[in-house]
Amino acid sequence: MSKVHNFSAGPSILNQGVLKKAAQAVENFNNSGLSILEISHRSKDFIAVMDNAVALVKELLEVPEGYSVLFLQGGASTGFLKTILNFMKQDGTGAYLNTGTWSKKALKEAEKLGKLNMVASSEDKNFNYIPKVYPISTNDNYLHITTNNTIFGTQIKNIPVSRIPLIADMSSDIFSRKINISDYAMIYAGAQKNLGPAGTTLYIVKDSLLGKTGRTIPTMLDLRVHADKGSMFNTPPVYPIYVSMLTLEWLKANGGVEWIEKVNQEKADLIYNEIDSNSIFEGTAAIEDRSNMNVTFVLTNPDAQADFDKMWKEAGINGINGHRDVGGYRASIYNAMPKESIQVLVDIMKELAKKYDLANS
Amino acid sequence: MSKVHNFSAGPSILNQGVLKKAAQAVENFNNSGLSILEISHRSKDFIAVMDNAVALVKELLEVPEGYSVLFLQGGASTGFLKTILNFMKQDGTGAYLNTGTWSKKALKEAEKLGKLNMVASSEDKNFNYIPKVYPISTNDNYLHITTNNTIFGTQIKNIPVSRIPLIADMSSDIFSRKINISDYAMIYAGAQKNLGPAGTTLYIVKDSLLGKTGRTIPTMLDLRVHADKGSMFNTPPVYPIYVSMLTLEWLKANGGVEWIEKVNQEKADLIYNEIDSNSIFEGTAAIEDRSNMNVTFVLTNPDAQADFDKMWKEAGINGINGHRDVGGYRASIYNAMPKESIQVLVDIMKELAKKYDLANS
Repeated sequence: MSKVHNFSAGPSILNQGVLKKAAQAVENFNNSGLSILEISHRSKDFIAVMDNAVALVKELLEVPEGYSVLFLQGGASTGFLKTILNFMKQDGTGAYLNTGTWSKKALKEAEKLGKLNMVASSEDKNFNYIPKVYPISTNDNYLHITTNNTIFGTQIKNIPVSRIPLIADMSSDIFSRKINISDYAMIYAGAQKNLGPAGTTLYIVKDSLLGKTGRTIPTMLDLRVHADKGSMFNTPPVYPIYVSMLTLEWLKANGGVEWIEKVNQEKADLIYNEIDSNSIFEGTAAIEDRSNMNVTFVLTNPDAQADFDKMWKEAGINGINGHRDVGGYRASIYNAMPKESIQVLVDIMKELAKKYDLANS
Repeated sequence: MSKVHNFSAGPSILNQGVLKKAAQAVENFNNSGLSILEISHRSKDFIAVMDNAVALVKELLEVPEGYSVLFLQGGASTGFLKTILNFMKQDGTGAYLNTGTWSKKALKEAEKLGKLNMVASSEDKNFNYIPKVYPISTNDNYLHITTNNTIFGTQIKNIPVSRIPLIADMSSDIFSRKINISDYAMIYAGAQKNLGPAGTTLYIVKDSLLGKTGRTIPTMLDLRVHADKGSMFNTPPVYPIYVSMLTLEWLKANGGVEWIEKVNQEKADLIYNEIDSNSIFEGTAAIEDRSNMNVTFVLTNPDAQADFDKMWKEAGINGINGHRDVGGYRASIYNAMPKESIQVLVDIMKELAKKYDLANS
């Protein structure tokens, strides 16, 4: 079978070595004669997995003392709710920066369950840029941001300086670049882009800020409960956590976040340079806000679409159709995406341009 | 390596053929060249998995029209909360039958977030029986039961006849015996016993009863949202759902719930008969309420403990220590547990008795 170049937006490409170990553990975990799918989460083998996964997050992101690292269920969509219940005071307000579909879902939940202050929005230009100047009121209980906008291909390059607790949904760019954890009250991220398969959500939360809202928080949504029990209050999603641990081991073995940030920049440059120098393609996001994870672009010549689609499909490229809400194309180039796959796409883009430039000359 | 006999209480034994296919899909799913861990949940391959899993639940449990079958995240512990938010009126009351650790957690959540009416409890005898006669008031919005009590080894044999909506946590005995879905307003079950690995929770809910509480329900906890989107409102836990689908295929291929109920009865009889005829062992649950899933027992002669523990460990038996809250032993004999593994345990019990009976004669 020819190689598949997996540009899916999420769930998305995982490292091949990780997948090999992940398959092995389903057959026979740690040479125990049992599958990882059928062992107790209280077994010493799984406790070692959880401990290792947490330790790797702390090491790779240089998490300081006073933060809990949790692997929970529910997706980032439940993170929207946990943000409100754990950080918005009973009669308080949450501030939100509106930069795309997911931040909008987060703020809609705040509007539904509490009070919302939208500090800025780029919806006026279909979210193709990141608003940069806006007031942050100390009357608000927190500022919520979405650091990378998977659908629109924008990324916050300069994290806002905030005097109120900063909460970030980093589902689509966590572990892709260096971050300063102490800038944040909480970070949460669905695993299924840079961390692992679907089914677990990472939380990094500053313990001293929890328990201050005056709200009665349902047990499973109270981050203190999960922090106290080390993500083992109830049965955790064993396998997604295990595969996340393998991915973090792979990242560490190759040089960690510093290494991948450099690689990600090279990968992004490779494709953005092609888009900018190729007459048939055009990027859709404001240049200074372009995401290094999700590259969105359109054809300037609609006649070329059938050819382009045929060419990338024949080359084994998968998952570059744009999100159904925006159309066009989206190449998701997460941590595990090799440069070689991007080169395959870039070569096709060059070939297509040659064909159409020639036709027009 | 010698065979491992996996008596774990959950996550627990899965069928060997299921595990083989599950490992294969991690390497190369449907011969696509991609792992099931890295494909989009919106891909046609995964949509087919979700559709098939739902169809198999409907077929195997004979789910009538008007019920939604959902695969969600959060474990049964989030089911406690969804029960309250989706079925308890703003100023209403939930009735609860208290038969063990998990039903107690469910009712504590109702007490925390609303109003609780505990109709009966077996806590007076450390939950070693199922209360059978109790009033059910039509003033309560629903009656919540836990059909099988994993920790104490009891199971409700006769489902209460209720004029108010009946809600059941079936985490540890769903698919083990025939049930009449139309008796229930909602059934929920964590996958990690009879259905699949940890990481997804099955809901079977009567659509016409939803949306009647007058509460503002957070989006991710509103069962109408998930029913409307066919469990795809947000990224579902792809792999746990896939392995659940494989398990349901295995169950169907072998004869479905009718077949497994018969097998489960034979398996339970095998070990309970040994407990009752063996002088060194004693069951801890009331005989008429004994669980066919979790067999709890103690040694009548504490001197035999070291010998017994050595013998079962040497035989490759795993996971029969009792829950940390109750001690003793617990043999969990879920659907995927082969009779042969139970026979290994029974043979050891016989051998132990012979040794000690001889010593005492």
